[in-house]
Amino acid sequence: MKFATFSYNGSLHVGLVDAAADTVRPLPGVGDMVDLIARYAEIKETFPSGGSGIAVRDVKLLAPIPKPDRNIFCVGKNYGEHAREFAGSGFEAGAVKGAEIDEYPAVFSKGFNTVVGPYDDVQLHSHITSSVDYEVELTIVIGKAGRDIAKADAWKHIFGYTIVNDVTARDRQKNHKQWFLGKNLDTFCPMGPWIVTSDELDAENLTVKSWVNGEPRQNANSSDLIFDIPTLVSTISQGLALEPGDLIATGTPAGVGLGFKPPKFLKAGDVVAMEISGIGRIENKFV
Amino acid sequence: MKFATFSYNGSLHVGLVDAAADTVRPLPGVGDMVDLIARYAEIKETFPSGGSGIAVRDVKLLAPIPKPDRNIFCVGKNYGEHAREFAGSGFEAGAVKGAEIDEYPAVFSKGFNTVVGPYDDVQLHSHITSSVDYEVELTIVIGKAGRDIAKADAWKHIFGYTIVNDVTARDRQKNHKQWFLGKNLDTFCPMGPWIVTSDELDAENLTVKSWVNGEPRQNANSSDLIFDIPTLVSTISQGLALEPGDLIATGTPAGVGLGFKPPKFLKAGDVVAMEISGIGRIENKFV
Repeated sequence: MKFATFSYNGSLHVGLVDAAADTVRPLPGVGDMVDLIARYAEIKETFPSGGSGIAVRDVKLLAPIPKPDRNIFCVGKNYGEHAREFAGSGFEAGAVKGAEIDEYPAVFSKGFNTVVGPYDDVQLHSHITSSVDYEVELTIVIGKAGRDIAKADAWKHIFGYTIVNDVTARDRQKNHKQWFLGKNLDTFCPMGPWIVTSDELDAENLTVKSWVNGEPRQNANSSDLIFDIPTLVSTISQGLALEPGDLIATGTPAGVGLGFKPPKFLKAGDVVAMEISGIGRIENKFV
Repeated sequence: MKFATFSYNGSLHVGLVDAAADTVRPLPGVGDMVDLIARYAEIKETFPSGGSGIAVRDVKLLAPIPKPDRNIFCVGKNYGEHAREFAGSGFEAGAVKGAEIDEYPAVFSKGFNTVVGPYDDVQLHSHITSSVDYEVELTIVIGKAGRDIAKADAWKHIFGYTIVNDVTARDRQKNHKQWFLGKNLDTFCPMGPWIVTSDELDAENLTVKSWVNGEPRQNANSSDLIFDIPTLVSTISQGLALEPGDLIATGTPAGVGLGFKPPKFLKAGDVVAMEISGIGRIENKFV
């Protein structure tokens, strides 16, 4: 199933998406997406099965979790080709030739101030950076709380998946060494268009693509993750209790702007589109 | 003034601390600490000035902000002697001899799962790490929202200060390169004992100290910060709107466990005490 957060006639709703019919039906009695996720096992049988929905074009889709309760967990350098393009770009602080692939996943976070909807504008912040870049990422949505989750149990803790654009100011990412400031400018995390439940996808075989102004940029498969989904859930949950609604962005493939010579950073008016098979598409204008 | 969050007779309160009398008076009509901070200008004249308080020993002090709305902003390598002891310890990924002092502040974050009270136990997580270390840090509490704050205006955005122990698993900090996982184990952020408003302190001249089992370890002055308080507020707020209740831990001085040869990491039963002049003391047992 696909669940979206949207506004319609001035109020916020969580709804069930019918992607074929391009409609969404509000779910009465659901407070917000995290409430839905936390109570999913108990309430999923109560969802209305019939009736007509609202046309998706008539609602405003928000990020499925517009204000995460905790910063989004984000993984860096998790596709081999991207790790090499990053190390070779001059924008990775402390890059070591021949040691582009990390032995342990690099994890950082993005705060709620970065989250915008799947079709919202993203600010370029041109007064402080001139190297804004896009990163399409398959993003895990945690369903069941847990700490010290074994790899073999990881799938049971996953509710579903969404798409995140892990927008990055490369100069700040490099200068500050820790990536946080380069990753946390306001509006730097478009998310959506909705959450697809894990039973509908083979998360280890999804195409992950992006375009800038229609020009293909990234094109990979989630099977190429260096640290796979069970490893990420297990590693992040070591000594850290995950909760329903936590988000883990799994890293981006090769083809980001810094990989070109010279780099192709985003300019005002650029439109970045992203698609992951079985999930959908997001598209954001940079302003 | 000093404001604490505490539980008493089974309910949570925000209260005004009288440190001389060792009492705390609950503030009726205040929802929580962030509510107090956001409405401070409007409500501070309404605080009861007389009457007797509850003895501090009869309440349970919690972290002043027990569940921050967004991860705590944390600064690394912000005292010169500590930057050198870290680089020389073997626990800094990518350390470069002669370049121990960063040109730009390194910023990372700690989530709400790390926050515990000023006298609560801290878990050693010995199943996943054997190098747990302490870091006393003067911590800024933001009072007034703002983005792109100029250094000259930074003081106006600060409500007050508290103490944080930025507990760190050094092996995970090193292995994962990005520091997040080493900094974010559950209970890894003791905080308190309360917030002292900025008018009561000269934040650029405070002694910052820690002890392990009574043995002095860290002893510095906040005047030695490499990136000073206005610089931190200004830098972090670039393109990122700070909000009332945001916390910025300003970095730790030399004397942490990794600085000893061999390192003195924490063991079960160790008690870590921290004091910052004009603020108070926190003391946590590691278990």
